Amino acid sequence: MKVEFEEDDYFCPGFKAAGISSGIKKAGKKDLALIVSEVSAVSAGVFTTNKVKAAPVIAAKKRLQRLLHRAILINSGNANACTGDKGMDNAMKAVDAVEVESGLKRGELLPCATGVIGVPLPADRIVSAAPLLVSSLGKRGWLDAAQAIMTTDAFPKICKKKARIKGKDITVLGIAKGAGMICPDMATMLAFFATDACVERTALKGALKEAVDMSFNRISVDGDTSTNDTVIVLANGVSGIKELRQGTAGFKRFSSLLTDAAKELSYMIVRDGEGATRFIEIRVSGAKTKKDADMAARTVANSLLVKTAFFGGDPNWGRIMAALGRSRIMLEESRVGITFNNVKVVSKGMDTGKEKSAAEAIKTREVIVRIDLGLGDYSTSFWTSDIGHEYVRINSAYRT
Amino acid sequence: MKVEFEEDDYFCPGFKAAGISSGIKKAGKKDLALIVSEVSAVSAGVFTTNKVKAAPVIAAKKRLQRLLHRAILINSGNANACTGDKGMDNAMKAVDAVEVESGLKRGELLPCATGVIGVPLPADRIVSAAPLLVSSLGKRGWLDAAQAIMTTDAFPKICKKKARIKGKDITVLGIAKGAGMICPDMATMLAFFATDACVERTALKGALKEAVDMSFNRISVDGDTSTNDTVIVLANGVSGIKELRQGTAGFKRFSSLLTDAAKELSYMIVRDGEGATRFIEIRVSGAKTKKDADMAARTVANSLLVKTAFFGGDPNWGRIMAALGRSRIMLEESRVGITFNNVKVVSKGMDTGKEKSAAEAIKTREVIVRIDLGLGDYSTSFWTSDIGHEYVRINSAYRT
Repeated sequence: MKVEFEEDDYFCPGFKAAGISSGIKKAGKKDLALIVSEVSAVSAGVFTTNKVKAAPVIAAKKRLQRLLHRAILINSGNANACTGDKGMDNAMKAVDAVEVESGLKRGELLPCATGVIGVPLPADRIVSAAPLLVSSLGKRGWLDAAQAIMTTDAFPKICKKKARIKGKDITVLGIAKGAGMICPDMATMLAFFATDACVERTALKGALKEAVDMSFNRISVDGDTSTNDTVIVLANGVSGIKELRQGTAGFKRFSSLLTDAAKELSYMIVRDGEGATRFIEIRVSGAKTKKDADMAARTVANSLLVKTAFFGGDPNWGRIMAALGRSRIMLEESRVGITFNNVKVVSKGMDTGKEKSAAEAIKTREVIVRIDLGLGDYSTSFWTSDIGHEYVRINSAYRT
Repeated sequence: MKVEFEEDDYFCPGFKAAGISSGIKKAGKKDLALIVSEVSAVSAGVFTTNKVKAAPVIAAKKRLQRLLHRAILINSGNANACTGDKGMDNAMKAVDAVEVESGLKRGELLPCATGVIGVPLPADRIVSAAPLLVSSLGKRGWLDAAQAIMTTDAFPKICKKKARIKGKDITVLGIAKGAGMICPDMATMLAFFATDACVERTALKGALKEAVDMSFNRISVDGDTSTNDTVIVLANGVSGIKELRQGTAGFKRFSSLLTDAAKELSYMIVRDGEGATRFIEIRVSGAKTKKDADMAARTVANSLLVKTAFFGGDPNWGRIMAALGRSRIMLEESRVGITFNNVKVVSKGMDTGKEKSAAEAIKTREVIVRIDLGLGDYSTSFWTSDIGHEYVRINSAYRT
């Protein structure tokens, strides 16, 4: 599924970005991105919980113990995971070279990587490419950067959100990579946000966590994360806004702006689901608890059988009932209602006889599946895509 | 993947079986099976834990409160799940007709079903077919029965095990249906065992539970069960053996015979994994706890990315490391070793540089993946298959 977007004014005051080819990927594809803030920025990061962590993840987490940073370096084509001590040496070699080349102080740059696991990072190529990378930095280099972090992505993912907060125009610019269904299991989900807002550190951390929870955490196949998953935000304050602090109206505006940007990027990731032909929203209501709502939506969204049925254009609600039944939630079969794009296919746990209209109704590229559990007041949404032949093709031949 | 088996002497003393077409499935395919013991048999069953339960599952569980049964009736092509009160009426209508036709007492027959969820069972067709079904019963009707319970299965699954216990020849005959990767999420896994052993009821229950735990529960995609999963054993004692009781050597022999039969059938289910080209055993050793061993093996066996990599013949051990990392087990990356068919690809958590030999080594239809966690003494095995285009084709077009 291709997403069209206008080549808008993708810039964020006080930031520059670049994306170039350093030779990690074959055929001269872009594989190295750099994001630099003109001034020190407040930083926050969210990382994979996978016990197998890539070297750059370990390094970035450690570096985030300091409050301020100025840059993010990302390579694609190589995850630098399962590479031992040598992997960390390679990561730092690349970091050092780019820090020196761009006149940053040691520790101001955060490293990230994505790509194949277990292959030594060709750090020399990054070192050699550092001068070109830094000289390529530009206010409008964001699309290049978004392209340089792609792996199996079919298109770059970028978005910009603006709002007037406390009398200042505030920008949040985000780029991401990751292709739908591969996310949970590979070194593949990255997102970076730049903002000219000035945000207190703890507040920024909270806003990022909230944004990730409402977006990227609601599209992953089973809530699991990969060896490299990383989301970082840099807030450089060049808008001149007074520092936004937790609990204030201004901070709430900023927080929802960041969440909006994260949601938009996460929808792009779903749309880029490898070989996906449909964007599917799973809306669960009537759950007994918040956890039940999440579990129900997640189980249905992740069901391979539900996904393949949608690929075939089949409104196979029986597979949704089976997924709900195994999702370990409070469930009364006779209270369940299911609607596909406004066609009610299940009422009181049973067929309504409207499958033919439902099959017509889901011939769209966007499908909303409403599941009413009829037991309580909790609701949630998850987003997923269908799964087809292209997914198998891409993942069976990924490295060949 | 096709499995060849000789049309052996598939019979079990004191049992008859039949498989016919009743018109539930299209095109005159077999869809109705009956297994009858000549005398009352001790019975035990293991059923789905899915909260959405098919009508026949509810009925069979209830009927298993009595100790003895004589028959099992199974229809394919319709799961009779999510069909409400009418579904139970239909199930009982079919049961009553077959009980009457075969001269059984009310309650002696256990009903089962598999197929599409949510479609009313055409009970009248079963009622009309009852005379033909009963007249088709024969000592060598087992292969017909195995064929009649198939849905997406590519081949029937049947096996026979014999042993001399306490001076008597004991037979365990089993049939099963289910096609690998669809199991966990559909109304699809059924297995039935007949034996001429005489086994005390509680002991029989225990033996069945053990057999299922060592076989069918180690091939399912995430340990979840469908709306219809059912395994039943009938022990009619016509071998003349003295009743086998828990704790005795004779019972242990019988129990392992039943487990062997269940394992053989479960391997057939994996081999029948829709579109599968490889049979993969995941052997985990060195786990800190038994639960860790199971979780590790299960997570790797269920990883869609691991499965698609095998489909592509790619010894992509990075995906295995990533799966281990997210499996919530005790893990020290630097202690992990991974071997593909005797080629060591990971040592101390890192590449051994032997991927090319590994790619050669896994060009077989059977692959053994050994994962040593290096942390403790627990080990286990799970069985899975690769996943390819045929899986997508079958599951996207299942009902069309």
